[in-house]
Amino acid sequence: MASERPLIHHLTNYVTVNLVANTTLCAGALPVMAHAADEVEEMVAHASALAINMGTLDPPWIEAMLKAGKEANRLGVPIVLDPVGAGATPFRTNMARRLLSEVEFSAICGNAGEIATIAGLEAEVRGVESIGGDARTAVMEAAKSIGATVAATGPTDFVSDGERVVAVENGHPLMGGIVGSGCASTAAIACFAAAGDASLETVSEALAFFGCAGEDAAPHSDGPGTFEPRLLDAVATLAAEPGLLEGRLRISEVEIG
Amino acid sequence: MASERPLIHHLTNYVTVNLVANTTLCAGALPVMAHAADEVEEMVAHASALAINMGTLDPPWIEAMLKAGKEANRLGVPIVLDPVGAGATPFRTNMARRLLSEVEFSAICGNAGEIATIAGLEAEVRGVESIGGDARTAVMEAAKSIGATVAATGPTDFVSDGERVVAVENGHPLMGGIVGSGCASTAAIACFAAAGDASLETVSEALAFFGCAGEDAAPHSDGPGTFEPRLLDAVATLAAEPGLLEGRLRISEVEIG
Amino acid sequence: MASERPLIHHLTNYVTVNLVANTTLCAGALPVMAHAADEVEEMVAHASALAINMGTLDPPWIEAMLKAGKEANRLGVPIVLDPVGAGATPFRTNMARRLLSEVEFSAICGNAGEIATIAGLEAEVRGVESIGGDARTAVMEAAKSIGATVAATGPTDFVSDGERVVAVENGHPLMGGIVGSGCASTAAIACFAAAGDASLETVSEALAFFGCAGEDAAPHSDGPGTFEPRLLDAVATLAAEPGLLEGRLRISEVEIG
Repeated sequence: MASERPLIHHLTNYVTVNLVANTTLCAGALPVMAHAADEVEEMVAHASALAINMGTLDPPWIEAMLKAGKEANRLGVPIVLDPVGAGATPFRTNMARRLLSEVEFSAICGNAGEIATIAGLEAEVRGVESIGGDARTAVMEAAKSIGATVAATGPTDFVSDGERVVAVENGHPLMGGIVGSGCASTAAIACFAAAGDASLETVSEALAFFGCAGEDAAPHSDGPGTFEPRLLDAVATLAAEPGLLEGRLRISEVEIG
Repeated sequence: MASERPLIHHLTNYVTVNLVANTTLCAGALPVMAHAADEVEEMVAHASALAINMGTLDPPWIEAMLKAGKEANRLGVPIVLDPVGAGATPFRTNMARRLLSEVEFSAICGNAGEIATIAGLEAEVRGVESIGGDARTAVMEAAKSIGATVAATGPTDFVSDGERVVAVENGHPLMGGIVGSGCASTAAIACFAAAGDASLETVSEALAFFGCAGEDAAPHSDGPGTFEPRLLDAVATLAAEPGLLEGRLRISEVEIG
Repeated sequence: MASERPLIHHLTNYVTVNLVANTTLCAGALPVMAHAADEVEEMVAHASALAINMGTLDPPWIEAMLKAGKEANRLGVPIVLDPVGAGATPFRTNMARRLLSEVEFSAICGNAGEIATIAGLEAEVRGVESIGGDARTAVMEAAKSIGATVAATGPTDFVSDGERVVAVENGHPLMGGIVGSGCASTAAIACFAAAGDASLETVSEALAFFGCAGEDAAPHSDGPGTFEPRLLDAVATLAAEPGLLEGRLRISEVEIG
């Protein structure tokens, strides 16, 4: 995330798209949102990572996601998926499955219920929020069956590569008080993955980085409204001065019974 | 709006969708935006209220609105309509009429011109802004003919159930200085309606609640830009501590000549 | 931009649409976003300016842009184009060319690469960001060949009417740190053009005005996140008190070799 700014191609929802774009820019990368089937292949060819977010899915977007995803696979561009609302309706669950069967993802980031759904486990997803579920098992099972690094965000984030599970404990409760902190986490992962890999270590560091930004933003906020601009300020500061992160990343291995 | 967070399904415009979603979340509910015709029926089945906002209407969305609305009616889920821009173009006026003829709404919230339009009165609507019109007559006539609680927002909000009209005088001029405070008002009504009814009292209280948030936000703002995050902070604070509203709601009955 | 608020009809992207709408409102005009082919002609008939932004282009939107543009031409409503991403993919370059061949624009505002692309010069555009290119030559050539006032925004903005080139040096580096400052610049131009013309002077003043807002916002910001609301505050303040701009506009003629 140094001087050469990687381009991140986002196919994302219109609810949180502005936060996703600004998170990407503040993290030191260049966001581009382009969804027309006529150009997604050419756009992704310039990208260092592709981020696919199912938030406000509809049929023409699914075609664009598949087209962009297949071309990214062909070119070796890493892809991050945020399976927003998988489990909430059969339409979303089926579309997540279709994306997973036709495109190879490097990393997947969702909430516990979404990840449990794509792992084939029982899960309760109301709207786009997760209600319970064992995130540790979910990330491990999903990572094994899909063959990607899988993260479940929440008060504690869990990340697995199918062999190990780590917990990321950076963050702040106000992150759950704004719409789109999950989408922005996925954007952070895409920025880190653009640097070359989407390993367990990289994905965990991206989430810890974003969590530290939340920690730095919270004391300057009077609620969720003022938290959001402060979060972007903190992302920009930490991206510009990574030394500020030293000794702060709370990433630890988790035992799975 | 207590511990159990009701799900609010929004079919809304892409201009103010983020503010609408954050208002919903700050008010203590869970927002979900999902517009694909393939899933709106299943999504609304999980919802405690449906909010339909015509802001950036186009044909596929109209189908989704009708489908979601009919299913919500079948299931008894209350529906709130924001007829954005009704009266501005024949397309919008016709679409508002079509929605009103095919779907039964519990509450309707718009500006004076939009409400006058759907009441069949003369109105001047430029773009999505209302220019004049007698809001008191408009809400009464619209409520009578539609059989729903109808609110017209403005410096003073007026609400009617077809028998009585009340004025809500909470609020602050800065609310008119940001794009989407009307859409966010509608979201607040949906959150309150999700608790069980969309009576004159409930709709008035929702608007007074939102107006109080504006009053609390204004002194911490240096203009419309800094007002918007402060407004969300205030919504969150008032939703978490409803005691702060005590004695502040300026709701009064209005004589209609 | 005085007491009578002109209506600005925007056909713009869903990434920065909220900033564009709020910039328009803060600048003293009324924004309306309406893209359905069924209503764009009637909506633009009420508008004092039309702003077309190619940010998240897709085929149905192109039809709406052409339809709205042709009607605006017929009615004499000035049109401003932001050819976002022209040069990044053949789809975008072709669509910019199609818009330029079928619709007559009063002003065009993009980054240096986009402007070079529509001028038929060599340019490197990555995603929607411009990488290098001689903006002075680009605006002159584009203005000559298109017959409109053309602006290229950047650390220094350049504006040409095909005969002269001026440099606008107002602004602040934080403007490049947020997504959409270019889109908002175009909105500012549309607001100024709505007052009657889109001359070299008017377009330069609009950019200088917006740059001054950036200068005023920066000292109150702790990064790009807090800068954006402060930018809107500053736009609103300067629009309400134009005397604050006195002696601050840094517009100067540039020699073209």
